[in-house]
Amino acid sequence: MPLLPQLTQARAPLTREVEVVNEHGARETISIPAERDLTVYVDKRELVTLMTLGAQPEWLVLGYLLNQRLIASVEEIESITVDWDVNAASVKTRHGIDRIEERTSKRVVTTGCGQGSVFGNLMDEIDSIRLPAEAGLRQSELYAIVNAIRLKESTYKSAGSVHACALFHGQELQLFVEDVGRHNAVDTIAGWMALQEDATASPAAPAAGEKIFYTTGRLTSEMVIKSAQMGVAVVVSRSGITQMGLDVALRVGLCAIGRATHHRFLCYANPQRLVLDAVPPATPLARERSAAAS
Amino acid sequence: MPLLPQLTQARAPLTREVEVVNEHGARETISIPAERDLTVYVDKRELVTLMTLGAQPEWLVLGYLLNQRLIASVEEIESITVDWDVNAASVKTRHGIDRIEERTSKRVVTTGCGQGSVFGNLMDEIDSIRLPAEAGLRQSELYAIVNAIRLKESTYKSAGSVHACALFHGQELQLFVEDVGRHNAVDTIAGWMALQEDATASPAAPAAGEKIFYTTGRLTSEMVIKSAQMGVAVVVSRSGITQMGLDVALRVGLCAIGRATHHRFLCYANPQRLVLDAVPPATPLARERSAAAS
Repeated sequence: MPLLPQLTQARAPLTREVEVVNEHGARETISIPAERDLTVYVDKRELVTLMTLGAQPEWLVLGYLLNQRLIASVEEIESITVDWDVNAASVKTRHGIDRIEERTSKRVVTTGCGQGSVFGNLMDEIDSIRLPAEAGLRQSELYAIVNAIRLKESTYKSAGSVHACALFHGQELQLFVEDVGRHNAVDTIAGWMALQEDATASPAAPAAGEKIFYTTGRLTSEMVIKSAQMGVAVVVSRSGITQMGLDVALRVGLCAIGRATHHRFLCYANPQRLVLDAVPPATPLARERSAAAS
Repeated sequence: MPLLPQLTQARAPLTREVEVVNEHGARETISIPAERDLTVYVDKRELVTLMTLGAQPEWLVLGYLLNQRLIASVEEIESITVDWDVNAASVKTRHGIDRIEERTSKRVVTTGCGQGSVFGNLMDEIDSIRLPAEAGLRQSELYAIVNAIRLKESTYKSAGSVHACALFHGQELQLFVEDVGRHNAVDTIAGWMALQEDATASPAAPAAGEKIFYTTGRLTSEMVIKSAQMGVAVVVSRSGITQMGLDVALRVGLCAIGRATHHRFLCYANPQRLVLDAVPPATPLARERSAAAS
């Protein structure tokens, strides 16, 4: 029986109404996303302050600790208690975190629409990552994923200014997370995934290799690394890719797909993982592009 | 005669061509933005690693030190030497930086499409900021600014996946900066501004209060704080605002304008700084919105 951590469920209101003046000089009331500071304490020691929408703060904190490699398993955590009255997440570990001072001393300020601070040397770690060779995606599944995201009710639709991430199993949506910082969104997914895997650990449970990670944000190196750390071999983005994101995707063998809207997309890395089972009818422009590229 | 720092001009190529596979299964060659790690050493001590496009690394490093409040003036810096062979920026100060260890020990991981890590307590500082009471913007100037950005040749147009910031004096574009992280872009502008102000310090030089800061990214708390720190009282964004961005704008008296495209915009804070001299003709929808809001 795995030891799952005790988690509060301190969801906070996700939007706030504010009054603005528009281009006609008229006042109107609109919604903007909430944004809260959440200071994380590990065994009463202050670790970091995250700025978050506050939808699933416990999964966020758990995923943050996992993705920063401060813990290797959810079983190391006894409890996470989030209290919005004091904007604090109190993490209690079962046996402490080894050398936490030393491991959080190196700062890398990264690119990207997100939290952006990585402790330690995540880049050094990527060569140890082995993504499942058979993991892949069908073009028809990709289209279903893009469509599922398009139809999703979201804070983005009501208030804008948030990033979304989602986890799919094939074309089936498993978790949809929004946050003001997209790294918070991916960390939240990582926290949730780790809990599921631990709770259902059995030979029959779907492996991470069958999972697809979707993000509205750019594929920066950090996003690609975090996906690979979760064992997810295919990432799909509505946006583009940065050079280091591409470098990391090539190095770890991850299939990176960007500019995914309606029937269009670009596969930046490892297209052998993508099965072209739903090629759209060629438009005159597409024929021209193909001719020019061949 | 002010003591200006010696700066290299280590501009690096801004885009890279890569081969992708599109939705028709065809290969095409596209450009993506370059992205480089730049490790900043201050008096031979490693401070931070920034991920950057690499267009104006010296201004970036200077603005970073200023915006993190590690230095108060460009005169504290003797030289900044950027060498892309080793991805290093070597900063030589004239008299060292007081208590640098202590001042860089507190981490806040912030929201936003950008570098996102702030040392120390920038929020504590905002109450000491005094923005010029008379600083403002005309709606006609706002439209000219949005149009100037639209016409700009840019890495974004050729490769996507970068954020842009710009500094205007009234409607006149003074500096346009793109980077993979938008906080790098604003830091670069801060570095350039500080150099200009120091070089031209005279009663006749335009004050920061007449300047307008434009960004393609969201108005997060960090962006608003950095603008206020530069003494700029009006910010314009193509995107929206987050709750903490709005809170800070209200607290420092900064005019925050978002969703600025073509003739549309929303003024989130301090609309008294905005002179409505070019109200567009009311459309049926606009009349409806005004009626509903009144």
